[in-house]
Amino acid sequence: MKFGFFDDARREYVINTPTTPYPWINYLGTENFFSLISNTAGGYCFYRDARLRRLTRYRYNNTPNDSGGRYFYIYDGGDYWTPGWMPVKKELSFYECRHGMGYTSITGERNGISANQLVFVPLGYNGEVHKVTLKNTSDCDKSITLFSFVEFCLWNAWDDMTNFQRNFNTGEVEIDGSVIYHKTEYRERRDHYSFYSVNTPIDGFDTDRETFMGLYNGPDTPDAVAKGQSSNSVASGWSPIASHSIKVSLKPGEEKQLIFILGYVENREEEKWESLGIINKTKSKEMIAKFQTSQNVDNALKDLEEYWAELLSKYIIDSTDEKLSRMVNTWNPYQCMVTFNMSRSASYFESGIGRGMGFRDSNQDLLGFVHQIPQRARERIIDIASTQFENGGAYHQYQPLTKKGNNDIGGGFNDDPLWLILGTAAYIKETGDFGILDEPVPFDCNENNKASLFEHLKRSFYHVINNLGPHGLPLIGRADWNDCLNLNCFSKIPDESYQTYGDPDGRVAESVFIAGMFVFIGPEFVELCNRRGLTDEACEAQRHIDKMREITIEHGFDGEWFLRAYDALGNKVGSKECDEGKIFIEPQGLCVMGGIGVSEGLAQKALDSVKEMLDTKYGIMLQHPPYSKYHLNLGEISSYPPGYKENAGIFCHNNPWIAAAETVLGRGDRAFEIYSKIAPAYVEDISEIHRTEPYVYAQMIAGRDAVRHGEAKNSWLTGTAAWNFVTITQWILGIKPHYDGLMVDPCIPKAWDGYTIRRSFRGVEYDIKISNPAHVSKGVKSVTVDGEKLASNIIPVLGKGRVHSVEVEMG
Amino acid sequence: MKFGFFDDARREYVINTPTTPYPWINYLGTENFFSLISNTAGGYCFYRDARLRRLTRYRYNNTPNDSGGRYFYIYDGGDYWTPGWMPVKKELSFYECRHGMGYTSITGERNGISANQLVFVPLGYNGEVHKVTLKNTSDCDKSITLFSFVEFCLWNAWDDMTNFQRNFNTGEVEIDGSVIYHKTEYRERRDHYSFYSVNTPIDGFDTDRETFMGLYNGPDTPDAVAKGQSSNSVASGWSPIASHSIKVSLKPGEEKQLIFILGYVENREEEKWESLGIINKTKSKEMIAKFQTSQNVDNALKDLEEYWAELLSKYIIDSTDEKLSRMVNTWNPYQCMVTFNMSRSASYFESGIGRGMGFRDSNQDLLGFVHQIPQRARERIIDIASTQFENGGAYHQYQPLTKKGNNDIGGGFNDDPLWLILGTAAYIKETGDFGILDEPVPFDCNENNKASLFEHLKRSFYHVINNLGPHGLPLIGRADWNDCLNLNCFSKIPDESYQTYGDPDGRVAESVFIAGMFVFIGPEFVELCNRRGLTDEACEAQRHIDKMREITIEHGFDGEWFLRAYDALGNKVGSKECDEGKIFIEPQGLCVMGGIGVSEGLAQKALDSVKEMLDTKYGIMLQHPPYSKYHLNLGEISSYPPGYKENAGIFCHNNPWIAAAETVLGRGDRAFEIYSKIAPAYVEDISEIHRTEPYVYAQMIAGRDAVRHGEAKNSWLTGTAAWNFVTITQWILGIKPHYDGLMVDPCIPKAWDGYTIRRSFRGVEYDIKISNPAHVSKGVKSVTVDGEKLASNIIPVLGKGRVHSVEVEMG
Repeated sequence: MKFGFFDDARREYVINTPTTPYPWINYLGTENFFSLISNTAGGYCFYRDARLRRLTRYRYNNTPNDSGGRYFYIYDGGDYWTPGWMPVKKELSFYECRHGMGYTSITGERNGISANQLVFVPLGYNGEVHKVTLKNTSDCDKSITLFSFVEFCLWNAWDDMTNFQRNFNTGEVEIDGSVIYHKTEYRERRDHYSFYSVNTPIDGFDTDRETFMGLYNGPDTPDAVAKGQSSNSVASGWSPIASHSIKVSLKPGEEKQLIFILGYVENREEEKWESLGIINKTKSKEMIAKFQTSQNVDNALKDLEEYWAELLSKYIIDSTDEKLSRMVNTWNPYQCMVTFNMSRSASYFESGIGRGMGFRDSNQDLLGFVHQIPQRARERIIDIASTQFENGGAYHQYQPLTKKGNNDIGGGFNDDPLWLILGTAAYIKETGDFGILDEPVPFDCNENNKASLFEHLKRSFYHVINNLGPHGLPLIGRADWNDCLNLNCFSKIPDESYQTYGDPDGRVAESVFIAGMFVFIGPEFVELCNRRGLTDEACEAQRHIDKMREITIEHGFDGEWFLRAYDALGNKVGSKECDEGKIFIEPQGLCVMGGIGVSEGLAQKALDSVKEMLDTKYGIMLQHPPYSKYHLNLGEISSYPPGYKENAGIFCHNNPWIAAAETVLGRGDRAFEIYSKIAPAYVEDISEIHRTEPYVYAQMIAGRDAVRHGEAKNSWLTGTAAWNFVTITQWILGIKPHYDGLMVDPCIPKAWDGYTIRRSFRGVEYDIKISNPAHVSKGVKSVTVDGEKLASNIIPVLGKGRVHSVEVEMG
Repeated sequence: MKFGFFDDARREYVINTPTTPYPWINYLGTENFFSLISNTAGGYCFYRDARLRRLTRYRYNNTPNDSGGRYFYIYDGGDYWTPGWMPVKKELSFYECRHGMGYTSITGERNGISANQLVFVPLGYNGEVHKVTLKNTSDCDKSITLFSFVEFCLWNAWDDMTNFQRNFNTGEVEIDGSVIYHKTEYRERRDHYSFYSVNTPIDGFDTDRETFMGLYNGPDTPDAVAKGQSSNSVASGWSPIASHSIKVSLKPGEEKQLIFILGYVENREEEKWESLGIINKTKSKEMIAKFQTSQNVDNALKDLEEYWAELLSKYIIDSTDEKLSRMVNTWNPYQCMVTFNMSRSASYFESGIGRGMGFRDSNQDLLGFVHQIPQRARERIIDIASTQFENGGAYHQYQPLTKKGNNDIGGGFNDDPLWLILGTAAYIKETGDFGILDEPVPFDCNENNKASLFEHLKRSFYHVINNLGPHGLPLIGRADWNDCLNLNCFSKIPDESYQTYGDPDGRVAESVFIAGMFVFIGPEFVELCNRRGLTDEACEAQRHIDKMREITIEHGFDGEWFLRAYDALGNKVGSKECDEGKIFIEPQGLCVMGGIGVSEGLAQKALDSVKEMLDTKYGIMLQHPPYSKYHLNLGEISSYPPGYKENAGIFCHNNPWIAAAETVLGRGDRAFEIYSKIAPAYVEDISEIHRTEPYVYAQMIAGRDAVRHGEAKNSWLTGTAAWNFVTITQWILGIKPHYDGLMVDPCIPKAWDGYTIRRSFRGVEYDIKISNPAHVSKGVKSVTVDGEKLASNIIPVLGKGRVHSVEVEMG
């Protein structure tokens, strides 16, 4: 069942009912100011840090769900309603929400009034613009009153949720004409305020929530709106809000537009005040002046559209599969950019209170956006590497504002360092910027202790080799990619963190997954050594890789699939010998991506076992059978009910690893089957089961053993986005950035006739037509560039200024 | 304006409208299991720790306010409603809430059905009992469906509010007949579950919130109730709830009762399971079996009433002022007991997430309950003293579960140690138990480093003397009693804590308040020395006290009142020389209570200045004039808007200090005026202004400079309760526990003719009749006990077994 449709030409998802199976959201903002907005205008916004600089209040897990946002109430002769349906929930004769690239437009119609709210964050602007369009669609004159409404958060979202004996006393506002200023704590140490303005004189306002709403009313029935009259209340303590009321008369067919700005301003200490207690409004006035007319707004929206068009222009497919095109061209790279902007901080499942930037997460995320804005990927690589320790280990997370490693969680996640090699290699392949390897980068954020990025990569590589266990496999530490497989934890007490309890330096528990990663990613380090002329270094590294490959086959293969690990007692995890958790997805993916066991036929066995034991109609489960009880030696994975999260849920992040692994074996049909099983556009038809947005990936889909098999959770902020983008664009469609150019190496369903890809690479445009007359899955017969046949399948970096035509024939 | 009335005979406050100016709550529970319940049945419950063992979910600062609780919906032929009005808010033909001692009874009537929910936590029981009484008050047969509803918290309330990517996957329940079990995380490390039962077969149930309520509905319009039909849903992840549905037929006049139990059970590790995945229900079945009949419930309620009658029997006044009687006999000691149970953890203003037990708070709180349960006061004194450092300083807070000092906030609050002397002295005076002084007590919770409690008190005393500033006044450290006067803080960055930032060891900033405390409390130490025969020790201590008295007069008096402090630059705080914050309340109270400047006439001046400059019709403000901007050298006090909290709010905790100080000067009329200005029963008539409960004190009332002058906040958990109880019962009514007996020393309004007090003291009953034929405020002419005249005004400890009759004539 669908609740909307893709409008591909406009790069929008169009939702045609407010009662989606879960709030379906969009993200606004590109640089410092960000917003979450649902299809009923719920959500919130913040400046840079979702915890410490939150502008508007949002209540997670509330009833009704998603009942806070930027709302416009239309009071129409006793009746009142909201164009996004929520929170008033009055029946609408028309409803539509269009989530586009960085903007959302919601339209509702009732009783002959059509109301649209367009919401976006202009480029280079620290605020939301709300353009409200009211139209009289009836035959008679209409006189309505429009009420705006936002509720302010007292900046620090965590304190705002907990510290009421203070917070109920601190709320302060100023009202200046049509502008409501929120200045709580500005009187003391804060140098920032927010404001909510409208470009017209107002007929009234409210800034005190209780006056506006009534103590025992919710946003569905605010007192002020019910009586059609603001009280001009001035918040003093309690809960400051901003609500304007504006009387609007409309003749039949007439349309009027109003522009509201919800903005954020910082002032320097010496410029905070206009006079005692009166804030300096210079900057807010400048911000407001920018959007006085609808033309201003339309221009800014056009700029934003061009910004996104440019970002999305780097890889464009022209295929007969419209679902594939909309994922590759629009929604998957869009989600990658949002995930880059947010890391894991703020979604409808991540409350914006906790979690810094993950070492592992950020490296993987950049695989998905490096082709869009390589410069920011470069910055991020340096930031991440700066949190690495001298021994090659790393803080598992760091704080985005300070860029310091997070001591609360520390290090000891032994896969972390290797991801830095993968991320850096991806950046260099995309840009050709080998110079990044010579950048001096601190250890442990200590500016006085630096080494080249190349040296950091070397430490990453050898952190694995310096931490091998009894079988010669890598020690797992606190956990590897699977944060919930805690083999050194042994926690018995509730509220202990599985990720920080126990001894991360256990010398027994080993990870076959890290072994696979090492064999997959290690060659990138070898290649970089070679390209720096460090032949001996390269040879030595290659010897370690070869050894790891042998050991993995000897001690990491279980007969029909790769083992997952050895636990702290030396027992196998993910083996046919286990009663539960016999087979795990992760090592099958990474080991085969690293080519382990391909020539021996073990890779095929492993992937066939995945299909046989882990596959479901909604995707591939993480392991099987699920753990029916808590296993002290395994940790958090066994804490979840069967079928959810890591305990045999379909953890989408690693599904593309299996798809990629299938391409190593040349099995293009299976690879694409795996891809399309979880790609949002392909599951749009089962939105009532899938529940989360059909235009972005979720982290998890409930597995076969779950009561709610097929139900997705934790949409938007997940490494799933990057890995699926890499898998479809590089491993399946086969356009792979290479140190020397663009390698063409597709692995596709045999039935496909071909497709065309427009790729912008190192500033050069390529128009790549791939034809498959022989209907193979894999194999490139010829590559012709601008009429000349190449000797290899690597398209060199050619001259800028024209579009180079590439013809690829598979066979 | 009143919203109810006191039913003194039943010790109840009766609320006759659900739309009180703020939710008016009650506390249930006496030992380990506690609940908050509002007059519309909102609130939540927890086992011992409001953060880590929260049974039900509650959303603070929500809209509508107070929209979660234990609700009973009555579905009556399409119409549905709730007897407490909230959350459905259907009009009721009758509404009444009775908050009694440890129980709450709410009645609503609509369409010929009367429904009552009686809620309490029986003695020695880990659960809430909900007895629901349904009566057909119409002339026709009625068939209704009753729906129960509670929403479970996933135990750790902080995690429950923030960690949705995990929590939406973990929810688990079991249903067994009429019992719904909440067992989230029981499968892993938790050894506890909760359950919600009813003593009758059910017609349906729901345990999945979304199924019961609908994704976009609130508790006001649950889907299941709207259609009159449960779905028998089984929660799997997302939000587990418990709702039973029961069809009930009632003939005209017929009444039926149902008993629901919301209980908590812990099982030992080896007894957790009945079989794989099925929890061991033995204990829950035992708990349920205890309340199968209304008679069981009525008996338990009677036991509870007797428990409270006993606690409240220790000090009973018989006076012509019913407001005085209801404060002294019921509501003030009740609040003292609740504050003892909760410390500052969980109220409608304290979210139960943060704050441990305060060193200073707990010592003051016990002044208010030591006469009710001295044994628990003793335990608490030892607990508190165990967190003292060897140098006499102390952790500012400690965790109730571990009893360890709280390292996050540390020490350096230089008033803290002295409160231990006051608390211990109060305990000994009440009990005569000098033996407590010989108890070995750890320093810094180290069992291997102990000293006698007396030695701890000595360290407390000398911590002041060892930390004197340039004028010889006590150094203030991080802060003294006024946590918000942070003279060594100098914080410029938002989100820094004023209580932990800066250097607590500043050697310049001094507190005149601590000087006053020292002179007031120090003599208790001297007396204890003398009673232990340590005459030299006593003399030396007395010399320090005398010196401090001189220094306070020399450097701590500002001409018309006592200074507040010297800041870190040596500048005066609370002086006529200041532009803002010229006079503070705290030193005027404590210095005069300590007798400083009484003989010199300075005390009179100081208290007259308080009246002139700080008094308002709603109480005495903390300081004046309020700070109009942030003062880096003063800290948090200047962070509040004028009139709120410490920035010139009426901080109720210190109002009784002034009343007590007035009694030192013999000004009984003024003392009682101050008392009655903020005593809840006396401000009941202005509940629309005061807003919080008219039966308990609030921490703060907005001062004259506030927009909302007279509005109270942070009711229930405040040292205000203890200090007002001590002031009215001891300093004004004049029955003071003394080491040698009961001292009689009233200071009352001249117009009073007298009053009678029944006092239970060290197991002996005294019936004390005080007459005031000469209409004086102070002065005891004669004391006659059992017909014999005493030589002093100290009634000795007499024989048990009979009521001793005491006649006191003032004059």
